[in-house]
Amino acid sequence: MDAISNTVSSIAPFVRAVRRDLHRHPETAWMEFRTAALVAEELAALGFRLTMGAEAADPAEYRFKFDDPVRLDAFNRALAEGANPDLARSMLENGTAIWADIAGTAKGESENCGSVLAFRFDIDANKLDENTGECHRPSREGFASVHKGAMHACGHDGHTALGLGLARALKEMRANFSGRVRLIFQPAEEGGGGALPMLRAGALKDVDCLVGLHLGINTAEVGEIICGSTHFLSTSKFDIFFEGREAHAGLKPHEGKNALMAACSAALAMQGTTRHGSGPSRICVGRMSGGQARNVIPARAEIHGETRGSTDEINSFVLDEVMRMAEGAARMWNCSCRSVELGHCPGGASSLELAREIAAIAASMPRFHKIETLGEFGASEDFTWFMNETQKKEGQAAFIQLGAGQTAGHHNCAFDFDETALEIGLELLTRIALRKLS
Amino acid sequence: MDAISNTVSSIAPFVRAVRRDLHRHPETAWMEFRTAALVAEELAALGFRLTMGAEAADPAEYRFKFDDPVRLDAFNRALAEGANPDLARSMLENGTAIWADIAGTAKGESENCGSVLAFRFDIDANKLDENTGECHRPSREGFASVHKGAMHACGHDGHTALGLGLARALKEMRANFSGRVRLIFQPAEEGGGGALPMLRAGALKDVDCLVGLHLGINTAEVGEIICGSTHFLSTSKFDIFFEGREAHAGLKPHEGKNALMAACSAALAMQGTTRHGSGPSRICVGRMSGGQARNVIPARAEIHGETRGSTDEINSFVLDEVMRMAEGAARMWNCSCRSVELGHCPGGASSLELAREIAAIAASMPRFHKIETLGEFGASEDFTWFMNETQKKEGQAAFIQLGAGQTAGHHNCAFDFDETALEIGLELLTRIALRKLS
Amino acid sequence: MDAISNTVSSIAPFVRAVRRDLHRHPETAWMEFRTAALVAEELAALGFRLTMGAEAADPAEYRFKFDDPVRLDAFNRALAEGANPDLARSMLENGTAIWADIAGTAKGESENCGSVLAFRFDIDANKLDENTGECHRPSREGFASVHKGAMHACGHDGHTALGLGLARALKEMRANFSGRVRLIFQPAEEGGGGALPMLRAGALKDVDCLVGLHLGINTAEVGEIICGSTHFLSTSKFDIFFEGREAHAGLKPHEGKNALMAACSAALAMQGTTRHGSGPSRICVGRMSGGQARNVIPARAEIHGETRGSTDEINSFVLDEVMRMAEGAARMWNCSCRSVELGHCPGGASSLELAREIAAIAASMPRFHKIETLGEFGASEDFTWFMNETQKKEGQAAFIQLGAGQTAGHHNCAFDFDETALEIGLELLTRIALRKLS
Amino acid sequence: MDAISNTVSSIAPFVRAVRRDLHRHPETAWMEFRTAALVAEELAALGFRLTMGAEAADPAEYRFKFDDPVRLDAFNRALAEGANPDLARSMLENGTAIWADIAGTAKGESENCGSVLAFRFDIDANKLDENTGECHRPSREGFASVHKGAMHACGHDGHTALGLGLARALKEMRANFSGRVRLIFQPAEEGGGGALPMLRAGALKDVDCLVGLHLGINTAEVGEIICGSTHFLSTSKFDIFFEGREAHAGLKPHEGKNALMAACSAALAMQGTTRHGSGPSRICVGRMSGGQARNVIPARAEIHGETRGSTDEINSFVLDEVMRMAEGAARMWNCSCRSVELGHCPGGASSLELAREIAAIAASMPRFHKIETLGEFGASEDFTWFMNETQKKEGQAAFIQLGAGQTAGHHNCAFDFDETALEIGLELLTRIALRKLS
Repeated sequence: MDAISNTVSSIAPFVRAVRRDLHRHPETAWMEFRTAALVAEELAALGFRLTMGAEAADPAEYRFKFDDPVRLDAFNRALAEGANPDLARSMLENGTAIWADIAGTAKGESENCGSVLAFRFDIDANKLDENTGECHRPSREGFASVHKGAMHACGHDGHTALGLGLARALKEMRANFSGRVRLIFQPAEEGGGGALPMLRAGALKDVDCLVGLHLGINTAEVGEIICGSTHFLSTSKFDIFFEGREAHAGLKPHEGKNALMAACSAALAMQGTTRHGSGPSRICVGRMSGGQARNVIPARAEIHGETRGSTDEINSFVLDEVMRMAEGAARMWNCSCRSVELGHCPGGASSLELAREIAAIAASMPRFHKIETLGEFGASEDFTWFMNETQKKEGQAAFIQLGAGQTAGHHNCAFDFDETALEIGLELLTRIALRKLS
Repeated sequence: MDAISNTVSSIAPFVRAVRRDLHRHPETAWMEFRTAALVAEELAALGFRLTMGAEAADPAEYRFKFDDPVRLDAFNRALAEGANPDLARSMLENGTAIWADIAGTAKGESENCGSVLAFRFDIDANKLDENTGECHRPSREGFASVHKGAMHACGHDGHTALGLGLARALKEMRANFSGRVRLIFQPAEEGGGGALPMLRAGALKDVDCLVGLHLGINTAEVGEIICGSTHFLSTSKFDIFFEGREAHAGLKPHEGKNALMAACSAALAMQGTTRHGSGPSRICVGRMSGGQARNVIPARAEIHGETRGSTDEINSFVLDEVMRMAEGAARMWNCSCRSVELGHCPGGASSLELAREIAAIAASMPRFHKIETLGEFGASEDFTWFMNETQKKEGQAAFIQLGAGQTAGHHNCAFDFDETALEIGLELLTRIALRKLS
Repeated sequence: MDAISNTVSSIAPFVRAVRRDLHRHPETAWMEFRTAALVAEELAALGFRLTMGAEAADPAEYRFKFDDPVRLDAFNRALAEGANPDLARSMLENGTAIWADIAGTAKGESENCGSVLAFRFDIDANKLDENTGECHRPSREGFASVHKGAMHACGHDGHTALGLGLARALKEMRANFSGRVRLIFQPAEEGGGGALPMLRAGALKDVDCLVGLHLGINTAEVGEIICGSTHFLSTSKFDIFFEGREAHAGLKPHEGKNALMAACSAALAMQGTTRHGSGPSRICVGRMSGGQARNVIPARAEIHGETRGSTDEINSFVLDEVMRMAEGAARMWNCSCRSVELGHCPGGASSLELAREIAAIAASMPRFHKIETLGEFGASEDFTWFMNETQKKEGQAAFIQLGAGQTAGHHNCAFDFDETALEIGLELLTRIALRKLS
Repeated sequence: MDAISNTVSSIAPFVRAVRRDLHRHPETAWMEFRTAALVAEELAALGFRLTMGAEAADPAEYRFKFDDPVRLDAFNRALAEGANPDLARSMLENGTAIWADIAGTAKGESENCGSVLAFRFDIDANKLDENTGECHRPSREGFASVHKGAMHACGHDGHTALGLGLARALKEMRANFSGRVRLIFQPAEEGGGGALPMLRAGALKDVDCLVGLHLGINTAEVGEIICGSTHFLSTSKFDIFFEGREAHAGLKPHEGKNALMAACSAALAMQGTTRHGSGPSRICVGRMSGGQARNVIPARAEIHGETRGSTDEINSFVLDEVMRMAEGAARMWNCSCRSVELGHCPGGASSLELAREIAAIAASMPRFHKIETLGEFGASEDFTWFMNETQKKEGQAAFIQLGAGQTAGHHNCAFDFDETALEIGLELLTRIALRKLS
C-alpha cells in the first residue's frame, strides 16, 4: 500500500461522517447556509485561500431574491442547527458560493503562478420529502433528512464530503505536488442556476484542467466508472404564472376566469410537446398549484418546469413550444399568462484526452472492475458551463460517473448509495491531482 | 319613530364596528376562535343561555382534524389578537359552534317552555387574499384582512355582526315579547360542513320557526329584499389524492408515474362533466397542487373541489362523474387515486307562508323599495339542513336575501357592501322576532 | 262518434303507411328530395295552393351549397327510390321547402282574404345509423332505414305523415270551416337552419295563429299532452376548421403542426365551457375528424358542434367561449383555425291563451288522460323563429308535445314510437283547425 | 463510358416515365392493383420467373380484409385506368406481393442453384391529398395524383421505377454475371404490414445478400449517399375504437356516453406518453374521427396511430402507455374501448461489410460527391424484417439512402424529388449486382 492509499484510508471515516451530517441537514438551492459555512470553516482551518460571496459568484446572474422570506427561514434554521453565525450571515447577504485554492510545495511555494487544476463539487439538495420507511437506510440508521421538503436524493452530500476529503488529502500530501489546485464548491446545481454566476466571477481563472464527478447515473455497482461523460442534455428552467378572475363557483361561475383550467390545459399540452426528429428531448412540469378555495373559481395558478434536449437547438425547440402552449392555454380560458426563464445549461462532452488519463489511473486501482473511457450522461448538469469554457480556452475537462450501488433512481425519495464509493472516489481524485501536478 | 327604530338606531354603530373588526380578522372554517370567543363573550354578558362546544355540534359529523397544525397556528393567532384565552382554548378543544337562547318577559319568565323562534348566522371567512388596492374600501379605510389567505368575501362578517346586534335588541326589548328566541352562530358555512353537526347536536330542539339571511346574492341595491329564497343548489365537497412515483426527469423519466398529469387530466375532464337535461349543475375544481421540484416527475397531486345541482339527483350525477373521471385519469397515467367526500348540503326552498309574513313586515318599513316574496337563490347554503328539518317537523323556515349594494361578486377579492344594509337588516329581524312572539 | 272522428279514423291507415315509408327512406337536412316531392304531389292532388322552392325559402339564408356532391348523390338516390323526377329536380335546384294553403267553404270561397291559421311540420331525418337489432320494431317489421347514416330518430317521419293526414282531413271537411289554413312543411329542422329561410320568404304572411307539434319530448305515454311548450333553448350551430402542416411522423415530427391535437384540445376545453349562473346551457361537439394516415402528422382537422342556453344571452356566452377556445387551441399547437357559424334559433315560449284553447279541446277528447296547459320543452327547435314572429305581430302561437310511448331517447339509434299517437294527433289538429275557423 | 453506363443511360428515360405514371396513379397499402399488375407485366415480358399472390405473401399475416368495399373500389379504378384485368383480378383475390428471379448466364444457366442476391422495392403510396399549387412540379407538369386521398409522398414511385429499370438492365447484361438475382416488389410499406407476409412466404429463400434503398431521408442533394443505414426505429401500428351511447344533446345529454370525448382525452394523453431515458421514441395519432351529427352525443369514435422507439423495448414501453391511456380515457367518459394492434417492425442496422462494398462502388462513380459508409436512418421501415432475417442467417444486408434533392419533407403534400437521382440509383444498383455476382 502506497502513501496515497494510507492517506485516503485515514480520511475515509471523516468523509463518511460529513456525508451523513449533510444528508441529515439537506439545504436546497441558494440556501445552503449550514453546508457552505461548514465547507468554509473546514477549508479555512486547512489553510486554503478562500474566495466567497459576491467575489465567488456574480450576483447579476443570480436567479433568486435575497429577501425571500423562505431564505430567511432557512438561515435561521441553519443557525439553530449549529452553523457558524458569521459565515452563515455573510452567506445570507452575499451567497453561498465558495472556491478555495491550495498550492503544492514540491518545488517550493508557488501559489500565485502557473496553471490551475480544478475540481468541482455541487452542494445543494433536492426539493423532496425523504422516504421514512425502515427499508431506507438513512431512516433506519438515523441520518435521514430532518427538513421537510428537502432531501439529498442526487448524492450531492457525497460530492461535498468527497470535496472536503480531497482538501484534507491535498493538505497532507502538499509536499508531493507542485502547482495549484482549486476546489469549487457550487451551490444550486438543481435548477441549473449555480454554475454561471461562479463562472462569471472568475472561478476558472488560470484553470487549464477541470474534473467533476457524479455518483451513479449510468454506472451501477461500486467499482464501475465512466471516466468522461458525453451527451449532456441542454436544459432550460421556467416558471409560468396564469392570472384570471375569481368568482363564486355556485352563484356566478360565468363571471370567473379560470386560471387553474388554463394551467391544466397548458401542462397537459406541454407533456405532449412535439418530439424532435434530430434527437431526444425532455419536458417536466414538475410542480403546479392553483386556486385557494374549493368554492371559488381559481384566479391564479402557476407551473414550474424544465425542458431538455440532446442539443441546444432541440432544447430551444421544446422551450418555444412550451411558451406558445402557455399562451394558447391562457387564451383558451380567457386568462393572461406571464413566463419567467430561470436559467439554462448547455449540452457538452468531456475531453477525450483527459478521460483517457483518468482511465489509466482507474486501471491502476484494483478496486475498479469495469472502466469505460467515454460514456453517455443523458441528463443535464450545469458543470457544462465550466466544461465548455475550459475547452474553449483549449484546456481539458472531464466529468466522471462513479459507480455507487445506488438503491433507487436519482431524485427518488428512496435514493441512497454505498459509502465505500466515497473512499474509492477520494483515492481516484487524489491520484488524479498528484499525477497531473507531479 | 317607534321604539324598535330607536333601539335599532342606538345599536347600529356597534354592529358596524363589530363587522369591521371581524372583517379585519377573518377566520376560515373550523378555526373561528377569535370570532366565536367574541360572540360568546358578548352573548354571555347579555345574559343569554349559551350552548357551546361538543354540546352545540356533534363531533362525529366534523370534517376536520382537531390536531391539524394549521388549526393550532390559527388558535395562537387568535390569542395574539386578543381572543379570550379560556374561551378560545375551549373552542380549540371542542369546536366553535354556539347557540344562545333568551326568553321574553312579556308574560313573565317562560324560558324553558313553549316553542322557539330561531335565527341563524354564519361566522366563517373565505380562503382568499383580499384586494389591497385603494379602490377597495376596506383597504382604503384600514379594515382589510390582516390574515393572508383569509377574507370575508361573502358577508359573514356582516351576518355575525347582525346577530350580535339582534342579541342586544332582544335584550333591550325583552319586556316586549314572550316565548323564546335562539340565535345560532354557525361555523364553517363555506365548505358546507358546519350546519349538520349543530343540527345533530340539537340546535333545532323546540324550534318551529327559523329565519336565515344573506347579504346580496340576487338582491342588488340597499332597500331590496327577497323574503323567501327558493332553488338552493344541492352540493357535495370532495378531495382527491393522486399517487404515482417520482423519478429523475432527465435521466429516467420512464421510471416515474406522473401524478400531476393524472390530476390535470382529471381536472380538465371534470370541468366538462356532462350537463344534465333536468336542470343546471356546477363543478368547481377550486384548488389543486402537485409535485415538489421542477426536475422530478411528480409523485403526488391533489384536487379540492365541489359539485352542485338543482336537485340532489343532479348533484349526485355530477359527483359520480367526477369520481369516475378521477379513476380513469389515474389509470391513464399509471397512478392510483383516493377520494374523500367532505360534506353535502341538500337543495331546498323557503316556506311560502313565512315569506309572506316577512314581506308584510318589510312592506311596513319605508327603507325597502323593492320587495319580492319568493326568489331564486341559485347557489348552495348549508342553511338547507336546518330549513329542511324545520319544514319536516311542520315548522316554517325562510331564508332572506337582503340588498347590500355589494361592490363585486361574492368570493371576489374586491367584495364589499354598504353597511347601511346592516341597520336595515337589524330592524327587519327585530321586527320579525317581535311580531312572531307578540 | 262525430264527423271529425269518422274522418280521422278513415285517414289513420294512410298516415301510418306514410310514416313507415318515410321512416324507411330518411333524408337529412336540405336533401329531403323524395320526402318533399311526395308531400308536394299529395298536396297538389288534394288541390292545395303550393308555394315551393325559392319562393318558399329565401336562398340568401341557406346554410348549404347547392352543388355539394353529397347533395347530388342524395338526389340520385331519391330518383332511384321513386321520387317524382320533375319535382325532385326542381327541389335540387331550388330547395325542399313547401307551404300549401287551403280555404274553407263554409262561407263560400274566400281563399285570398282574411287571416290564416298555420300548422308547421318538419320533415328531415337525423344523421345516425339506425339500430338493426330484432328488439327494434322498425328493424323487426321491415321499415328501418335503408340509408346508411340517416335515420328518423326524432319523429319527423310522424310529423310529416300527420301533416299529410291533416291535409286530407281539411280537404274532406272543407265545407265545415271558413278562412284559410296553411300547412308549412319545413326542411332542415335538425341543425336549425330550415325555418329562417321560410320565414324570410313569407311563410307567415297573414298568419295570426300558429300551431306546431312534437312527438314525445317531455310527454311519455300515449294520451299525455303538453299544450304549450315553454323554455325553448336558444342554440347556435358551428363548424371549426384547424389547419397545420403534415410531416413524417417518424423522421421529422418537429416539422409538422398538429391540427388534430388542436382539435382535441379545443373539443375537450369546449366540453368544459363555463356554466352560467343565470340558467342552464349545453355544448355538444357532435362530430370531429382529422388526419389522413397513421404515420403523418395531421395537417387538418374539423369540429362540428352546437351550443345552447336557456336565454339568447347564455347561448351567446357559451358560443363566445367556444370560439375563443378554438383560437387558443390553435395557438397552443401552432395551427390556424377558421370558424363558421351555421345558424341560430332563439329561445321562446308558447302563448298561454292558445295553449288554454288547445287544452280545452284535448279535454274534450277521451283519449287524453293527462293534460298540461304549459310545460317546459328544454331543448331547441327552430319553430321558435316562427313562434316569436307570430307573437311579435300580436298573434298566438303554441307548440304541442304529444305523448307517443317512445322506446328510447330522441336521437338514439333505437328511437321508435307508438303509432296510435298519430291518430290522436290527427284528431287534435283537425279539431283545432275547425274550432279556430268555425 | 463503360457498358454499364451505356445500358443505364438507355434505360433512364423508361425509369422516369414509369415514375411519373405511378406518381399520377398512386395506390395505397394493400390496394396497389394497377401498380403491381404493371410490375408483373413488365417482369414477365422480360422473362423473369415470377412468384405472386398467396405464394408471395402469407395471407395469415395480412392486416386487411379482402372484402373491404374500399378495396373493391380501388380495383375498379385500376381497371378503369388500364390495369391488366387478369392480373388485377388475381391480385384482388390473392394480394399484390411479387418477387421475380433472374439468373445470369456468364457461367451458363444456373437459375436454380446457389445463393441469391436480392433487391427490395416498396410500391405503395401515402394516404394524403397532393398539393395542387403551381409551385409543385407534379402539378405544374401534369403528373400529380389524380386520386383523392392518395399521393406518392415518400418516393416509392421512384423506388418501383428503379426496380423495373434494374430488371431491364439485368436482362440486358445477363451474360455479364452468374448466379441469381431476386427483385422483391413489396406492397404496404406504409403502415408497416407488407414485409412480414412476404418473409413468411419465403421471399428470402436462398438469399445471402440483400440491398434496399430509399430516396432522400438523411441525404439531401443528388450525389450524396449513405451506404448502410443504422438506427431504424422499432414501430407498432394500432387502431382503437371507443363506444359509448348516443343521446339528444339538448334534451337528455346526461343519458349519453360521449365516445368522442374519450377519444380526445386519449389522443391528448398519448401525445404526452412518457419519454424514455434510454432513447428517443415517437407517437402519432395520425387519424381520428367520431360522432355523426352535431346535435347528438357521439356514441362512437376511433383513433389510428403508431408508436416508435429506438429499441423494441422503448417502442413497447410507449405502446403499453398508449393502451393504458385508452382504457383510462374510456373509463373517464364511461365508455368502453377496444384496441387492435396492426403490425410491428423491429429496429435494426445495416451490415458494415456490405456497406463498405457499396461505398467502394459509389466511390468509383463520379456522380457521387458525398459518401457516408454508415449513417442513421431515424425512422421506421419494414425492410428491417428482411434485413434482420438475412443477418440472422449470417448473410449481409444494407439499406441505402440516396440523395434526391427532395423539395419537402417525406409525407408532406409538396414532396417531390430530382429524377436524376433515379439514373444514379439505377447505375449504382446495377454495379452492385454485377460486382457481387461477377
